[in-house]
Amino acid sequence: MPDPNEQTRIDMHAARSQSTIHMDAVRDYLYDGRTEWDSHVKVVETMKHDPVFDKSQRLFMTRSDRYKRGLTMTNRIYELSQLHGWTTKQNTEAISLLDEGVPMNLHSLAFEPVIMSQGSPALISEYGKLIASRGILGSYLQTELGHGTNVSQLETTATYVPATDEFVINSPSVTSTKWWIGALGRTATHGVVQAKLILPSVGGKEQDMGPHLFFVQLRSLDDHKVLPGIKIGDIGPKAMGGMASVDNGFARFDHVRIPRDHMLSKFAQVTPEGKYVQPPHAKLSYGGMLYIRSSMVTSAGWTLAKGATISIRYGTVRRQGNKNKSSGLESQTITYPSVHYRLLPILAHAYVFIQLGRNLTKAFAHMTTRLASGDTSLLAEMHATTSGLKVLITSTSIQDLEVARRSMGGHGYSGFAGLGRIYAEYLPAATYEGDNFVLDQQVVRAALKSYSNLMSAKSPSTDILSPSSYYLRLLLPCSKPTVQLTNGLWKDYSVAISLLEQRAALMVQDLAGHSKSADANVNQRVSKAVTEAFVAAQVGLMIQALPLGDTDNRVIRDLYRLYLLTTLESSLLDFLSFKIIVPTTDGADPVRSLRAEIAGLCLDLLPNAIGLTDAFGFTDWELDSALGVQDGAVYDALWEKAQTEPLNREEVTSGYSDHIKPMLERGQRLAGSKL
Amino acid sequence: MPDPNEQTRIDMHAARSQSTIHMDAVRDYLYDGRTEWDSHVKVVETMKHDPVFDKSQRLFMTRSDRYKRGLTMTNRIYELSQLHGWTTKQNTEAISLLDEGVPMNLHSLAFEPVIMSQGSPALISEYGKLIASRGILGSYLQTELGHGTNVSQLETTATYVPATDEFVINSPSVTSTKWWIGALGRTATHGVVQAKLILPSVGGKEQDMGPHLFFVQLRSLDDHKVLPGIKIGDIGPKAMGGMASVDNGFARFDHVRIPRDHMLSKFAQVTPEGKYVQPPHAKLSYGGMLYIRSSMVTSAGWTLAKGATISIRYGTVRRQGNKNKSSGLESQTITYPSVHYRLLPILAHAYVFIQLGRNLTKAFAHMTTRLASGDTSLLAEMHATTSGLKVLITSTSIQDLEVARRSMGGHGYSGFAGLGRIYAEYLPAATYEGDNFVLDQQVVRAALKSYSNLMSAKSPSTDILSPSSYYLRLLLPCSKPTVQLTNGLWKDYSVAISLLEQRAALMVQDLAGHSKSADANVNQRVSKAVTEAFVAAQVGLMIQALPLGDTDNRVIRDLYRLYLLTTLESSLLDFLSFKIIVPTTDGADPVRSLRAEIAGLCLDLLPNAIGLTDAFGFTDWELDSALGVQDGAVYDALWEKAQTEPLNREEVTSGYSDHIKPMLERGQRLAGSKL
Ligand SMILES: Cc1cc2nc3c(=O)[nH]c(=O)nc-3n(C[C@H](O)[C@H](O)[C@H](O)COP(=O)(O)OP(=O)(O)OC[C@H]3O[C@@H](n4cnc5c(N)ncnc54)[C@H](O)[C@@H]3O)c2cc1C
Ligand SMILES: Cc1cc2nc3c(=O)[nH]c(=O)nc-3n(C[C@H](O)[C@H](O)[C@H](O)COP(=O)(O)OP(=O)(O)OC[C@H]3O[C@@H](n4cnc5c(N)ncnc54)[C@H](O)[C@@H]3O)c2cc1C
Repeated sequence: MPDPNEQTRIDMHAARSQSTIHMDAVRDYLYDGRTEWDSHVKVVETMKHDPVFDKSQRLFMTRSDRYKRGLTMTNRIYELSQLHGWTTKQNTEAISLLDEGVPMNLHSLAFEPVIMSQGSPALISEYGKLIASRGILGSYLQTELGHGTNVSQLETTATYVPATDEFVINSPSVTSTKWWIGALGRTATHGVVQAKLILPSVGGKEQDMGPHLFFVQLRSLDDHKVLPGIKIGDIGPKAMGGMASVDNGFARFDHVRIPRDHMLSKFAQVTPEGKYVQPPHAKLSYGGMLYIRSSMVTSAGWTLAKGATISIRYGTVRRQGNKNKSSGLESQTITYPSVHYRLLPILAHAYVFIQLGRNLTKAFAHMTTRLASGDTSLLAEMHATTSGLKVLITSTSIQDLEVARRSMGGHGYSGFAGLGRIYAEYLPAATYEGDNFVLDQQVVRAALKSYSNLMSAKSPSTDILSPSSYYLRLLLPCSKPTVQLTNGLWKDYSVAISLLEQRAALMVQDLAGHSKSADANVNQRVSKAVTEAFVAAQVGLMIQALPLGDTDNRVIRDLYRLYLLTTLESSLLDFLSFKIIVPTTDGADPVRSLRAEIAGLCLDLLPNAIGLTDAFGFTDWELDSALGVQDGAVYDALWEKAQTEPLNREEVTSGYSDHIKPMLERGQRLAGSKL
Repeated sequence: MPDPNEQTRIDMHAARSQSTIHMDAVRDYLYDGRTEWDSHVKVVETMKHDPVFDKSQRLFMTRSDRYKRGLTMTNRIYELSQLHGWTTKQNTEAISLLDEGVPMNLHSLAFEPVIMSQGSPALISEYGKLIASRGILGSYLQTELGHGTNVSQLETTATYVPATDEFVINSPSVTSTKWWIGALGRTATHGVVQAKLILPSVGGKEQDMGPHLFFVQLRSLDDHKVLPGIKIGDIGPKAMGGMASVDNGFARFDHVRIPRDHMLSKFAQVTPEGKYVQPPHAKLSYGGMLYIRSSMVTSAGWTLAKGATISIRYGTVRRQGNKNKSSGLESQTITYPSVHYRLLPILAHAYVFIQLGRNLTKAFAHMTTRLASGDTSLLAEMHATTSGLKVLITSTSIQDLEVARRSMGGHGYSGFAGLGRIYAEYLPAATYEGDNFVLDQQVVRAALKSYSNLMSAKSPSTDILSPSSYYLRLLLPCSKPTVQLTNGLWKDYSVAISLLEQRAALMVQDLAGHSKSADANVNQRVSKAVTEAFVAAQVGLMIQALPLGDTDNRVIRDLYRLYLLTTLESSLLDFLSFKIIVPTTDGADPVRSLRAEIAGLCLDLLPNAIGLTDAFGFTDWELDSALGVQDGAVYDALWEKAQTEPLNREEVTSGYSDHIKPMLERGQRLAGSKL
């Protein structure tokens, strides 16, 4: 009988050998080409041996040390960047290789895009270069202690004083304290502050123009001290140790003065006399938020790629339970249907989200070009798409990360498994950039609007439907769906897409007819249906566009089919309650056949599970998981990791004499016996 | 317009005033009587002002410090216990008030019960008192690096040597290292070790008798040093900082000798000559495990009680969004259907689990008495019940804690909100005491067995059905369920119970008929259906036995109805696919009417939400949550907490000169401007 520890390497090797896909080709597909992969490898190779980026101690550090480590790494990245001439994309990649939020993220994701898209030419000419080269470090101060979702009720004020041509930024109450602001607590030198613009009274009453954005210096560039009139601090640790390296902070302003041209005034403006100049389009300022949301799709994909890699690798080498008759070995846990049914869909989600993110980034770039020339026509569509996707991909990813962790049994709960850390870090994605439950309402509102536009059109046709509402065409009389629930039905991916679109259409129609008697959860259900229909159609396009050789295309097509079929399965209730799926005439049960098809598809995919995860191209340094090690030697990895636990440094714990000994002695006295 | 910060207190006060229930009476109901409540208060009052039990610093501590703090608190509890003459129950309560796992838990939950139920009279007479008074501290060493679920393949050996009348405990491989053992890493002096019993060869081959339990001393009682031949350490940090105060450990044994009578031999025994004496009943040793599982139901209830209290209190004072026309105030988030629909079911789960746990503890005590007199007839039933319940209550509670946390938006992700900590600590309950996915198989196996017993009985009748399989009676010809899906249907709680039982019965029957073509997830679905049927019947009994006054009974009955109806809702797919629920003859849609009923029920319960959570009787010290403070002043609490963050101690972060300054200077150079 082979030693279980040795067996892990053998199993991992065997799993690699049985893979039929061309790992390199699939990897290039995931990275969008060999050039991108090569550029990625260069960054990884530079970083992974640099002691600054050592990940082995972070689980033992206090938050203060984690924060400082975050700074050290960020500074080192820009040092290396200069040394090696990295591109902006490579810089971004380097930051994301850290595998944890750092203050710099806010500069790049929020501060810089907002200023570049909404700052006046004057402001950009003064600060643009500095911002791009990080000569100043920024943060984005919108949320307050008392208000997050409801931006219209922010309490911070920016009162214009014509006499000095300045705004006075002020925090009038406890709840007006800016809160949650990334990089604010200890790092940022500057910030974009959202505040109610107050203009001089016309007829005795000050005019409240609602929230606007202001560029404010927060700390001295000489000694980093907080500037007078401002109180700043870190808001404290986050749940489950997540985002430990980011200094989310609070700030109160006590009548802080800034020059008039520090209002971000590309669109709305204030004249020296204090007159308000309206922006040309109410939603012009949405651009920045949409950028973050579309980048979230890509990062969700790569986050799940990690979850899938770690859990599928572990499931491949963990043997537990039923013994195989011929080999005498216990089964690899991944071979249990109840295990791979949990994990393979995660792999599918990762592949789909990565491609989806790529398409979205392209669409975003396209929109930005059009916006620059004053064309706002793509904005509403982009808004609808990214809202729904943000909800879907964050909810899915959070759930998947936990499913992956839990699939690994006890060892999945070890800090060294890595998935707990990734989960805690990823978790707030359900909340920031728009709380998911609030976004659901917006998705539904947009869907109902498209529906009523279609229905009230003189001659309703597909012409007035954008991609995000294209599923509504199925309500047009001409295009009755013709899904025949025959045998072999589930093999045809277009059937799944068509069903998912039909479901969205019927649910929107139903809600439009019953909006008065809507139940508490209806927005969540309808939003999900609408976005899943959109994604399904996108997946259809991905399948059609598969660029690889036959073998590889077939495997990835199966993976995409698994995406579609498990999406269907998870919404079977809608299909039955809307009678979209009904028993076939021969009496066969479509619910049963769908589940059987999924079970079979999982078995088909199983031999390529390791190949498909290898294709993500992660090094052990990137994964930082004892259970996800490349060579499969998980027991050696866990053992070695355990030896590094600081508690193990003392032979006898220093708590012994003060706490354990008295307890034992008291107990022995009570028992009337001394051992 | 009132200040939002002041408004929080006003809102909380108003919510209390509008409650119609008698808070004291409901609280006594939850605590099982006034006497129990008074005894609880005594412990709380003693502890909450003692600086040893201060909870305010734990989020800032390293794991090593958390471990030591855990020891300090444990020792102090037993000191106080002696001082105040606390009962065993009060000691247990004191430990659970710590609100986090401590090493002592393993002594009380695993070590002590196993020895008392399976140790020989001699062993108990020697160590029983010491164990009870904690004159020695124990751990339970079953799991190994390579094996958890599959206990039959544990590799540690205990070889009997007749010459010296000893067992030799040995770890033959890396994977045989004991792993995950609570209290082992730094604390325990003794352990119960599970090892394969190897008896002297009969005819040339050693006999492997499979896993048995052995009492082993691990550390010296003089100086706490690990005894020769043993290597012990802590296995390292847990996911998301959970269980930080527990020293889960590893151990390797290098031919360690223990006397023969240290085998736990109440049932199986080894004679001096090395002969094996069979236990009278194969499952006699299950008792201990069942004890932990039944205690897990109660603790899940109280854990959810915290989740419900914190999130419902926050939702009561958090105002965000739509403005109320008359008051001009934004809405309390709890008033949004999408929020209270998430939270009120959690409150219902807490109430149900607390009562369920109480009943189970009583049933367990009953079984133990019977077992002591050699009657094993209740064992199988207890096993079936606790397996299913363990899965259901842990899966539900984990999910609920995250739902509660997420309902609080951004502030829910603050460490100070408390729910992240509770979640991380509770999470492994899905894995320990039997991985939930593995237990599902056992639940299904037991259900199929009951089914086939019933079907193969000469005259099938309810007589052969135990409570855990009583739902199967609905398959008997005589007892066709008579659920009429008429208007007002959902008001009658017995309809929900009957439907849930019918679902379980049909699903078990269906699986029995299709076991060959089962899909990957069927065990999870069937196990859930079976356990939900059992719980539903129990809830029916709880409703019938409600002991309070009319008003209170009505409110709690509504809460229990919410439990039943949301259970139904979450399994609607089963009801539709098994055609248990079909459109009524008048064409009404039962799915829609169920959801409407739930929405209405939530609105009915809403005015009492604060009263029902107050009835849990938590002090602020127990909850340790800035968002769950009794007086509702969440903003003041968050603000004060943030001021304690260690990062805020330095005016300028010490990372400035080494990392921020160089970054800024580099950026300014690159931009060609020095500010
Ligand atoms: C890790 C992290 C980083 C962040 N970084 C930044 C940053 O750099 N800069 C910044 O400005 N902000 C930041 N934020 C704040 C973030 O933008 C807000 O937390 C987010 O917008 C949610 O708002 P909220 O916290 O006020 O939630 P709330 O709006 O208070 O939500 C609480 C609950 O009420 C519900 N709810 C609220 N309104 C409605 C409604 N109208 N209808 C129905 N239900 C409703 C929500 O669904 C939720 O369940 C960060 C937050 C986090 C967690
Ligand atoms: C916080 C914590 C404390 C603990 N404390 C102790 C302690 O004090 N003493 C002690 O002895 N142990 C302890 N344990 C160990 C615990 O008992 C095991 O982790 C648990 O039994 C699960 O076993 P495993 O880790 O080997 O998971 P595995 O069995 O390896 O499970 C891995 C995966 O395989 C699946 N799987 C396994 N077998 C099968 C099968 N036959 N069919 C289908 N799927 C299968 C599981 O569902 C899971 O998804 C602790 C664990 C934790 C997390």
